[in-house]
Amino acid sequence: MATERLVVVGGDAAGMSAASQARRLRGPADLEIVAFERSHFTSYSACGIPYWIGGAVPARDELIARTPEEHRARDIDLRMRTEVVELDLAGQRVRSRDLESGAEEWTGFDRLVLATGARPVRPPLPGIDTAGVHGVQTLADGQALLDTLDTLESPAPPADAPARRAVVVGAGYIGVEMAEALVGRGYEVTVLHRGEQPMATLDPDMGGLVHSAMNAMGIRTVAGAEVTKILGGSEGRVRAVATADGTEYPADVVVLGIGVEPRTELARAAGLPLGDSGGLLTDLSMRVRGQANVWAGGDCVEVLDLVAGRTRHIPLGTHANKHGQVIGSGVGGGYATFPGVVGTAVSKVCDLEIARTGLREKDALAVGLRFVTATIRSTNTAGYYPGAAEMTVKMLAERRTGRLLGVQIVGGAGSAKRVDIAAVALTAGMTVEQVASLDLGYAPPFSPVWDPVLVAARKAVSAVRAAGV
Amino acid sequence: MATERLVVVGGDAAGMSAASQARRLRGPADLEIVAFERSHFTSYSACGIPYWIGGAVPARDELIARTPEEHRARDIDLRMRTEVVELDLAGQRVRSRDLESGAEEWTGFDRLVLATGARPVRPPLPGIDTAGVHGVQTLADGQALLDTLDTLESPAPPADAPARRAVVVGAGYIGVEMAEALVGRGYEVTVLHRGEQPMATLDPDMGGLVHSAMNAMGIRTVAGAEVTKILGGSEGRVRAVATADGTEYPADVVVLGIGVEPRTELARAAGLPLGDSGGLLTDLSMRVRGQANVWAGGDCVEVLDLVAGRTRHIPLGTHANKHGQVIGSGVGGGYATFPGVVGTAVSKVCDLEIARTGLREKDALAVGLRFVTATIRSTNTAGYYPGAAEMTVKMLAERRTGRLLGVQIVGGAGSAKRVDIAAVALTAGMTVEQVASLDLGYAPPFSPVWDPVLVAARKAVSAVRAAGV
Repeated sequence: MATERLVVVGGDAAGMSAASQARRLRGPADLEIVAFERSHFTSYSACGIPYWIGGAVPARDELIARTPEEHRARDIDLRMRTEVVELDLAGQRVRSRDLESGAEEWTGFDRLVLATGARPVRPPLPGIDTAGVHGVQTLADGQALLDTLDTLESPAPPADAPARRAVVVGAGYIGVEMAEALVGRGYEVTVLHRGEQPMATLDPDMGGLVHSAMNAMGIRTVAGAEVTKILGGSEGRVRAVATADGTEYPADVVVLGIGVEPRTELARAAGLPLGDSGGLLTDLSMRVRGQANVWAGGDCVEVLDLVAGRTRHIPLGTHANKHGQVIGSGVGGGYATFPGVVGTAVSKVCDLEIARTGLREKDALAVGLRFVTATIRSTNTAGYYPGAAEMTVKMLAERRTGRLLGVQIVGGAGSAKRVDIAAVALTAGMTVEQVASLDLGYAPPFSPVWDPVLVAARKAVSAVRAAGV
Repeated sequence: MATERLVVVGGDAAGMSAASQARRLRGPADLEIVAFERSHFTSYSACGIPYWIGGAVPARDELIARTPEEHRARDIDLRMRTEVVELDLAGQRVRSRDLESGAEEWTGFDRLVLATGARPVRPPLPGIDTAGVHGVQTLADGQALLDTLDTLESPAPPADAPARRAVVVGAGYIGVEMAEALVGRGYEVTVLHRGEQPMATLDPDMGGLVHSAMNAMGIRTVAGAEVTKILGGSEGRVRAVATADGTEYPADVVVLGIGVEPRTELARAAGLPLGDSGGLLTDLSMRVRGQANVWAGGDCVEVLDLVAGRTRHIPLGTHANKHGQVIGSGVGGGYATFPGVVGTAVSKVCDLEIARTGLREKDALAVGLRFVTATIRSTNTAGYYPGAAEMTVKMLAERRTGRLLGVQIVGGAGSAKRVDIAAVALTAGMTVEQVASLDLGYAPPFSPVWDPVLVAARKAVSAVRAAGV
């Protein structure tokens, strides 16, 4: 019998990475590991769902990094379709329910990992449950959407038939990626979003570039659109989406890409500390604040934003995996920390790459930072290299100190991952003058002789000087 | 009449960037600028020559960033085809020769910029001046090679004729890029190189990946090849290249890509300080050491390697442009410095991207650093994303401290510029543990959920721990 039992609540990236890393450090004779997962799947890439829907990834199972059987082969007692419904921290036990049979039981723990993830925001709109309205957060969501699309697309329509219409609600990462996926399947796509521009994770001036590019690709975007109702047709299937101004957008299918929120009801009920977004608050080793034997990671926690100096909810698979590693090391008796994030995110819509890191203008204002901005247009390769595409870089620098605060990039191939330069510079606390001197890779197929990030930094240096003290 | 005169020796990237930046800061009434250039061209991209030869860049003039006329329009007295043949530092004047007429004259200066560039290494081999043997350092070199190729290729041979044969001597950046260009034109290409593997700017294990990829592309590579002689044929044109072991490699055209050395005879004759490679030594503002009014930049100087802690000769257009900016600011009464480099370089051969930054194993040994290495294989996108290609990352970390010392990357699209992550981390003096925690951009089209650089860093962390103190 093992000397200790680890209980993991949630079997996706953070939870199962934690379990796997703990198992690497402690064998089954020393540590028993029990993991509970509500769904039919473990350890999958939710970020890959748009590419599966779009057809670039042919099969659902390619998104699964590790199956339940693979986890079990590593001596992890994985209980699928079993939901944890109560945490008893004082009693060091959790109550779980078998979602097939309804049977409940208590399981004791010495160490507990909460990795309950996030849920898609699903506003209580009239008609939201109409057939043909889909979220795309989980593999099950993706499968349901695919089934709807397959129904709509078969039998194949005559070549002169009007395109089927899709409405995407929300123009964040998931919204633009789903718009691309649906355009790729031949739909006439309308994206309804509340903000001034799509991609509200960028400043509006940079979001405007995404707007123009989406329109050029044939994707219609509607700004300031407040969805009020989903309208069903005669067969009970979705017919249109209505907005506050009375417009009805006809739709054969509707995709909700409005964002997610931490799934932390259990934690809240157990009195664990939550941040402004409802995400769990942890220390640097991903232990829940104030708890000796409870860790949390992935989409259910808030992370420290190193630039803003406060915690935020940033649901991203890459963070979840790092959390899992750190937690697994801690549970396994090792030492690791998750120092925080700088807010890096990348995406694409068709050929347009979109990236951001650090603070937007409104983020900086919200935390009391004064700044200057510099925006430049360059190319992704030497200008004379065939296929050179435009790249726009916006940089925020703190007034007086010149410290880099944020970078946003929109453009052709090579734009997205270029933001990593700024992510490292932000982590290191560099000034834009230091960024302007960086020794970045140069060859004509990869960059102009002055990399666009350097050009932006030089302009930011001038802006800092011009702004004075 | 201007209050001061600036004389610039050399009209390519460093010299003309310096002149342009000085002009931006000081008008013609305040500063007269005289620039001397030996060739027919100013401010061009030598790095673009392989792409012009290969046909990707259709016309020579696309490589010219700014013509003599454009410089003159900015009140720069640019004297083309005029070579400076003597520096009289005490007398604050330079002697120049008009290469057309042979006429010489003295020109006084208050401030002097030396930007004399580099020259290709051209070993004193028997037959090196045979027709059909070409360097590719300057636009004139490139034009001569193109003329040779056009002659060889016209009239077009019958479809069943054997391919024409090209031998490239040297397997550094220019060698592999020229191999790609010649393969693209339909040549049977053999690359002769002295080292164990191509791309000696990488460690041999990583160079081996380049070797395999080149062979798979149909490029023959010969390691340990010491060229001893160029053999001419009956018409006085090149016929073959002979190596020390007696092998003759048949060749219709030969390209020399053996590297370059600083062109500093004038500086040497004037008693200016030179480093081990023969490059000029400057301070951080790019002033020649010990001189109040003489600056130097571009391929004729040595730069400070921030990781090795010593100066090296690294001829690269991107450094030359930065030098020019810094010099122009200094001459113009502003303040700027060039803090040094970390040794970043990127290249490609067909679809294979090649990148390095920091120190190789032998560089680290040469400067007294003890290190561990970690090499990992991953993919350039999520593994399930269509077209995912292999990416290999090698990382060097200092023993005990875990400080990052160098990174080499070889792989598919996105490999080259990923090295910028390491370039910034090296500049910031990060440990591999800090690198492993970086918040890098993640989305399936751009990266696995663990970026390959993070995976390498994690492995390096383990290697540092395992090596102990």
